[in-house]
Amino acid sequence: MILKDMLNHSQALDRAFQALADPTRRAIVERLTQRPAPVSELARPLAMSLPAVMQHLAVLEAAGFVRSEKSGRVRTCQLNPEALSLAEQWIEARRSEWERRLDRLGDYLATLNQQGEDNG
Amino acid sequence: MILKDMLNHSQALDRAFQALADPTRRAIVERLTQRPAPVSELARPLAMSLPAVMQHLAVLEAAGFVRSEKSGRVRTCQLNPEALSLAEQWIEARRSEWERRLDRLGDYLATLNQQGEDNG
Repeated sequence: MILKDMLNHSQALDRAFQALADPTRRAIVERLTQRPAPVSELARPLAMSLPAVMQHLAVLEAAGFVRSEKSGRVRTCQLNPEALSLAEQWIEARRSEWERRLDRLGDYLATLNQQGEDNG
Repeated sequence: MILKDMLNHSQALDRAFQALADPTRRAIVERLTQRPAPVSELARPLAMSLPAVMQHLAVLEAAGFVRSEKSGRVRTCQLNPEALSLAEQWIEARRSEWERRLDRLGDYLATLNQQGEDNG
């Protein structure tokens, strides 16, 4: 069960980072931080066909970044910040682990330095 | 010049997120947060050929996450946290923009509510 959770989590991270690895998809996420928007409005500034935009939106939905709802003939998209948090937390944890290591290394070097002074 | 910088920045983000969209590459980054390591040591726990590991390392190097140096016959890899920061900052900026929007929306709803009470 724990292994299954780890695999699910890993696949969620695959999808999240994959979704962000494209400038059009990042532009859509950026646009949706301002307010929810219908697909047609998201497509307007983008230099591509509506089906191409829909495909990018499908990748963002699969990654959990975007939720959409259809009302009549209009599909409205909104940002779901949980997937952003997941990706952010993964990076943040690695960066802070690395910084802790640097701190420990710094402490160790300071100790060596102090011992050198004590002995010299 | 500004457009060129933006494009370079965008391509750096493409490469950074693409590099993180793979569980093996994330495992290598995780391993390197602990200490620098030779390629052979990084390859040992991974269920794949050495050339396959080298290919993942090349992707991580192109994204700026890893730097490597050859000394004699041993290539040692170490983490370069700048690319981690770049990717983290992009996500963090989007998430906080979104949270600011929610705060503004909350303020607006509170005002509407207050006006309703004042009028009722």
